[in-house]
Amino acid sequence: MINVFTVEPANQQRLLELLVTATETSVRHVRGFMSAALHRSLDGTKVAMYAQWRSVEDYQAMRENPGPLPYMQQALALAEFEPGMHEVVETFSASHGDT
Amino acid sequence: MINVFTVEPANQQRLLELLVTATETSVRHVRGFMSAALHRSLDGTKVAMYAQWRSVEDYQAMRENPGPLPYMQQALALAEFEPGMHEVVETFSASHGDT
Repeated sequence: MINVFTVEPANQQRLLELLVTATETSVRHVRGFMSAALHRSLDGTKVAMYAQWRSVEDYQAMRENPGPLPYMQQALALAEFEPGMHEVVETFSASHGDT
Repeated sequence: MINVFTVEPANQQRLLELLVTATETSVRHVRGFMSAALHRSLDGTKVAMYAQWRSVEDYQAMRENPGPLPYMQQALALAEFEPGMHEVVETFSASHGDT
């Protein structure tokens, strides 16, 4: 899932804190959750959650789970939400040892 | 970078192939590139590249590098492009051993 939230820059930090709390206390304990990374856009207008789930069904079950639901409702009060369900086509690593 | 391309579903596969070629032959050899994952949206309308770069400056230098440029021009002929520069706020892993 690549979920992008569009926010007023004044609300970006609050939305980030909400999503950290939601993921730590609830989402990461749900069956099928594998890993996630939360991002702030440098221009202040977006928050992006890149999350790996075992299956589409596991993700959909989470969206109906009463644990994460109140957090999602709070997030939607702060931001526009564009969810995106994807599958990984290919991964790439650097060709050099440069770090 | 979370770069999302919006495409006609008929062009999704062609865009994916183009981005695989661009990344394999050019982008992953550029200084500052760390890793990337290429995704197709299940609805056919998006392609998303999630890439880690060492710095904003390294990414910007790549965008002006003559190696990747022709691929980017071909991609833009096929799709609308929305680039997004982000920093990672936090990462999360599953709380369970469920695989």
